[in-house]
Amino acid sequence: MHSAETPPLSSWNEGPIKRALLAFVDRVTREGSEDFVAHDARVAAFDNDGTLWGEQPMYVQGYFAFDRVKQLSAHHPEWAHQEPFASILAGNFDAVARGGEHALVELLMATHTGLSSDEFEAVVRSWIGTARHPQTKRLFTAMIYQPMRELLDHLRAHQFKTFIVSGGGVDFLRPWAQEVYGIPPEQVVGSAIETRFELGPRGPVLTRLPKVSFVNDGPGKPESIQSHIGRRPLAAFGNTDGDLQMLQWTTSARPSLGLLVHHTDAEREWAYEEHALVGKLDQALALAPEAGWLVVDMKRDWKTIYPPS
Amino acid sequence: MHSAETPPLSSWNEGPIKRALLAFVDRVTREGSEDFVAHDARVAAFDNDGTLWGEQPMYVQGYFAFDRVKQLSAHHPEWAHQEPFASILAGNFDAVARGGEHALVELLMATHTGLSSDEFEAVVRSWIGTARHPQTKRLFTAMIYQPMRELLDHLRAHQFKTFIVSGGGVDFLRPWAQEVYGIPPEQVVGSAIETRFELGPRGPVLTRLPKVSFVNDGPGKPESIQSHIGRRPLAAFGNTDGDLQMLQWTTSARPSLGLLVHHTDAEREWAYEEHALVGKLDQALALAPEAGWLVVDMKRDWKTIYPPS
Repeated sequence: MHSAETPPLSSWNEGPIKRALLAFVDRVTREGSEDFVAHDARVAAFDNDGTLWGEQPMYVQGYFAFDRVKQLSAHHPEWAHQEPFASILAGNFDAVARGGEHALVELLMATHTGLSSDEFEAVVRSWIGTARHPQTKRLFTAMIYQPMRELLDHLRAHQFKTFIVSGGGVDFLRPWAQEVYGIPPEQVVGSAIETRFELGPRGPVLTRLPKVSFVNDGPGKPESIQSHIGRRPLAAFGNTDGDLQMLQWTTSARPSLGLLVHHTDAEREWAYEEHALVGKLDQALALAPEAGWLVVDMKRDWKTIYPPS
Repeated sequence: MHSAETPPLSSWNEGPIKRALLAFVDRVTREGSEDFVAHDARVAAFDNDGTLWGEQPMYVQGYFAFDRVKQLSAHHPEWAHQEPFASILAGNFDAVARGGEHALVELLMATHTGLSSDEFEAVVRSWIGTARHPQTKRLFTAMIYQPMRELLDHLRAHQFKTFIVSGGGVDFLRPWAQEVYGIPPEQVVGSAIETRFELGPRGPVLTRLPKVSFVNDGPGKPESIQSHIGRRPLAAFGNTDGDLQMLQWTTSARPSLGLLVHHTDAEREWAYEEHALVGKLDQALALAPEAGWLVVDMKRDWKTIYPPS
């Protein structure tokens, strides 16, 4: 039943984390094991930003929003004098962060809504195909974590259904999650805005409205897991305090596995934790030992960070 | 690649509908066909009430709610004098319908909320295992339509992912959809109430709140297809005006298939359409010829209605 996936987790260094991951998968999937779980109950939930790909110094979706402001600015001359757009057009991104939640919502609405779902998908596809990280110069899709991709493969080779449960926008993730992670659109859960069905002159459209319908963070994650997936995952993977409740919910039943990716590698990636503006990991890290969650030390546990070019 | 499913659609009478269904599946799944669609884009969406199982004289979820009022009434002596509960306890169901939307919402909140998601799942499982239809005396799960079950099988044998997109409550459907229809929880979309994540004395719980979060009917169906499935289905199956927009959305791209089940068999099931209180089919039926949607005439097209006992 297993795909040609040998050896598993080859980008993980030998050590306690790799051993625990392999042992867990074996324990819940080996016929005859005391903790054997049937195929159709093997659900694994992955946070995206900072867990499956990089999130520093800013979420990838932030770069997308900034590029889209530049792209749309020709039609919005008033943006030259209107925040947060003026700062973005001047390349002054810090000013946007200082604008707080109000500025972010303005930005989100201007760049993510007012068009049809089909149009937005095309915009995302086009951007993700060419956009690069300002520091690494890599395509963002080449900044996914190779060890986590191998973990996705290993789980799927053992009949797990893999889901993304992200604080990011679901419609920003779905257009490329299949190709990049092997995860189909219906297995991506995320923050969402409302759409409205309309019969337009060229047929039915779903128009993206300037209204947030769900923020998929913190306690929102177990809530969206219930509303979207409809069952408790067997394993959950995150990297921030926004993943705390997802890990608590997942590991409140047995057998189960919770894992946190700790960004400890300032040389090959970024090192950040309890004081980070993006990707704060404080409370969840403190609770990990008692909860029995695995904590990946990127510097120690990962042989490579990104996929080979 | 196909399962042992021979001959397909054996409970369907030979005729234009069976021919059209087989031809469509062949056309989109046969390698080399001009309309070939890749495996991972083969999504089929099914309404539930009146499309996959019976809905007369009342939705099955209505029977569930009534039984639950009786079950909970010992803890609610005040219900003896409070509508809609007093009428239900007196067996006067018509009075509930006359109470309109307000009565229905009262009923829904009293019977479907205030407990945890795990508890509600157990309540549904227990009820569906024994509850029977007052007229046919069959288990409700034995009132699914055998021809539609064969259609689900035929589609899955051709690598379609099958989804339920129901106006009914998603948490009422998920506990048994896998066993009865072969559809896993994450492929069931429906109306929903809000839940709240809480750390209780015995660990994390998701508490069901007395607040409707989504009504999955009419234009809500394409909207939920977008938010939950994230792509346009290749085929959609319904039986009422509540399925109209789902069919419009699905068949606005090509290739695609839309189908309406028309309840025309007063002898073996029920005959109802434009004047029905439950399951009204009027506008969608009128639009079907021009839209090219298949219309199943139950009396003519189905050899049998229910599965063999």
